[in-house]
Amino acid sequence: MDELLSDGITNTPPSFVRAILKAASDPAITSFAGGLPNPISFPQEKLMESMQRVVAERGPEAFQYSMTAGIPELREWIAERYNHRFGTDYTADDVLVTTGSQQVLDLLGKVLLDKGDGVIVEKPTYLAAIQAFALQQPVFREVELTEEGLNTDELTAALEAGAKMIYLIPNFQNPTGLTYTAENRAKVREILADRNIVVVEDDPYGELRFEGESLPYIGATALPHGVVMGSFSKTVTPGFRMGYLLTKDHELLRRLNTAKEAADLHTNVFSQFVVLDYLRHNDLDEHLVKIRDLYRDQAQAMTDAMAEFFPAEVAFTKPQGGMFLWATLPAGINTMDLFPKALARCVAFVPGEPFYAEPGSYSTMRLNFTNADADTIRDGIRRLGEVIAEAL
Amino acid sequence: MDELLSDGITNTPPSFVRAILKAASDPAITSFAGGLPNPISFPQEKLMESMQRVVAERGPEAFQYSMTAGIPELREWIAERYNHRFGTDYTADDVLVTTGSQQVLDLLGKVLLDKGDGVIVEKPTYLAAIQAFALQQPVFREVELTEEGLNTDELTAALEAGAKMIYLIPNFQNPTGLTYTAENRAKVREILADRNIVVVEDDPYGELRFEGESLPYIGATALPHGVVMGSFSKTVTPGFRMGYLLTKDHELLRRLNTAKEAADLHTNVFSQFVVLDYLRHNDLDEHLVKIRDLYRDQAQAMTDAMAEFFPAEVAFTKPQGGMFLWATLPAGINTMDLFPKALARCVAFVPGEPFYAEPGSYSTMRLNFTNADADTIRDGIRRLGEVIAEAL
Repeated sequence: MDELLSDGITNTPPSFVRAILKAASDPAITSFAGGLPNPISFPQEKLMESMQRVVAERGPEAFQYSMTAGIPELREWIAERYNHRFGTDYTADDVLVTTGSQQVLDLLGKVLLDKGDGVIVEKPTYLAAIQAFALQQPVFREVELTEEGLNTDELTAALEAGAKMIYLIPNFQNPTGLTYTAENRAKVREILADRNIVVVEDDPYGELRFEGESLPYIGATALPHGVVMGSFSKTVTPGFRMGYLLTKDHELLRRLNTAKEAADLHTNVFSQFVVLDYLRHNDLDEHLVKIRDLYRDQAQAMTDAMAEFFPAEVAFTKPQGGMFLWATLPAGINTMDLFPKALARCVAFVPGEPFYAEPGSYSTMRLNFTNADADTIRDGIRRLGEVIAEAL
Repeated sequence: MDELLSDGITNTPPSFVRAILKAASDPAITSFAGGLPNPISFPQEKLMESMQRVVAERGPEAFQYSMTAGIPELREWIAERYNHRFGTDYTADDVLVTTGSQQVLDLLGKVLLDKGDGVIVEKPTYLAAIQAFALQQPVFREVELTEEGLNTDELTAALEAGAKMIYLIPNFQNPTGLTYTAENRAKVREILADRNIVVVEDDPYGELRFEGESLPYIGATALPHGVVMGSFSKTVTPGFRMGYLLTKDHELLRRLNTAKEAADLHTNVFSQFVVLDYLRHNDLDEHLVKIRDLYRDQAQAMTDAMAEFFPAEVAFTKPQGGMFLWATLPAGINTMDLFPKALARCVAFVPGEPFYAEPGSYSTMRLNFTNADADTIRDGIRRLGEVIAEAL
């Protein structure tokens, strides 16, 4: 079989996180490894009401083949939401509805990257973006992510080396939980302004800010090839696989549309109608308050427990939103080696390694705080602290 | 922008059919161009009942992230269905649930094809397969499709030239409506048996046989790298985008699973639960009788009308199932030129050209018979016959 496989797939690792999720699915284990939104964020009863309305009002249209771009009213709702939040001037024609925002990564890789092309990513970055782009065999150019945002010297060097796309997660980044400052965003925008490069900002957690104020995007409508990625996975339901992108670059959008057509024709149209109906009949902002309040408390519980139980040598981020935080152990401790030891103590995390485009030994770990209550978080972090202390 | 685009997307045409569908969406036009199942095939009320049960019985699980392969009970149902129909020995572990069967084409292309690799396809073949594979820039090797099935001399020559995958639609083929005979299947199986090649049989219409008996697959479990593709689009609803593949080649399946993970993580899990519940609480075979009876009548109405109104020089297929038939005009008439003339007479079809891997001038056309009643079909075919007669 091996000789029949493509070079692309041979170079693409299966997702380490999904392997870990299996290991950590034992109910006896306190898992900070997942990336699951809290079920409180799924408005099940309201979605059921929407389904009934959709079947009654739309009938066969909701079950038939549909257009690749997504249903116009939903695209319009998305454009309006961004205009309202950020003062942009998006229209329905700037939006492509996708099968989860993961699909946007797949489409961008296909449409932009040939073997050997440069793609700039944060160091560390979202591991399934590495996976999606890896199929095209590009050259990854990593740029360090700091407490302020991108390391701009490294960014300039990476741009000089050549790249067709830069992929960033400016808000409550996965995996680090870090958020770019307004100053860093402005500086990065300035550096990118005179470059011929597609600027992708992945923002699945943007609506989950539980501290501070929303900040403008780097690119979006401010740069000619700006692309913003969004999702309903963290605000309504991940089970529907509903994401989208917005861009004013219609030449790029046309190509993404062709790639989408070849990938799955269109996104589940029943789910599109249901989400649209839900958004029209309910107050999303009210719903979001509930999610944000919960996640704020959970993040607080985790950072409090880490302050109490983690050895002083361990640094960790304090996210203003999202679902994750990031711990950095003293250099020389490979968190991959720590993982089985933690599992033996019934606690799981994701070791840092899969979040780096370059394989290596890393002393970092990602912790999810959205899927356990405060007591469970405290107890799990206490045990994880003991595992770390033993390794020092 | 152009210099930022990949070679793959530059070589991938947007779907001509979807462009045509737009042109033909004017309600004044009798369109035989679409590929839409008749809405009679959507069991809307039953699906609504299933949705209510899924929300009540499964709760958050139906709205949360889920596993890439698809929910186990649905995979088991699919395996059992094939075992029941074909005496195979598939299990849930041989099944991958996908975002429509279109996604299987995308995954196969990614996992198998590098630039310049050979892929054998029927001449003509499903145009969105050409589109999905084209992204990988393979060399297409076309093998003539006859009333019996594949031209086996051409098949042998294509295999000699080299190919990693052969892609076939043995039942009521799209676009031709042709079905391989049992003898042709056996012959093709024999020719493929000692070759190291992935044998893909795409069978979205297999359950829509309205004449004759089901025939065994060529590969499936009988060849080591056999892959069968299926779909709920023509039997339950296309709007949910639910397809799947079955294969005993678990090395291939593992790679397809990785590619699926990178593409969209998993298929809409709510829709998976709903379809599973629908299949458990209803008799699919009873539902299929209704669809088959309708399509048999519609196909008959179309072939009767063609016999009555088409010039004698036009040959056409008489499908035993599925949704399409195929007309062949005298050589030298380019059906692409005929299209605007037909549109002017308020009737639409799909010209043959996009169904061939090689661009050129073709005198063929695809006609869909599932979306109009007998009178509309008769009247549309009459007008199309006049357009053809004028061109002779």
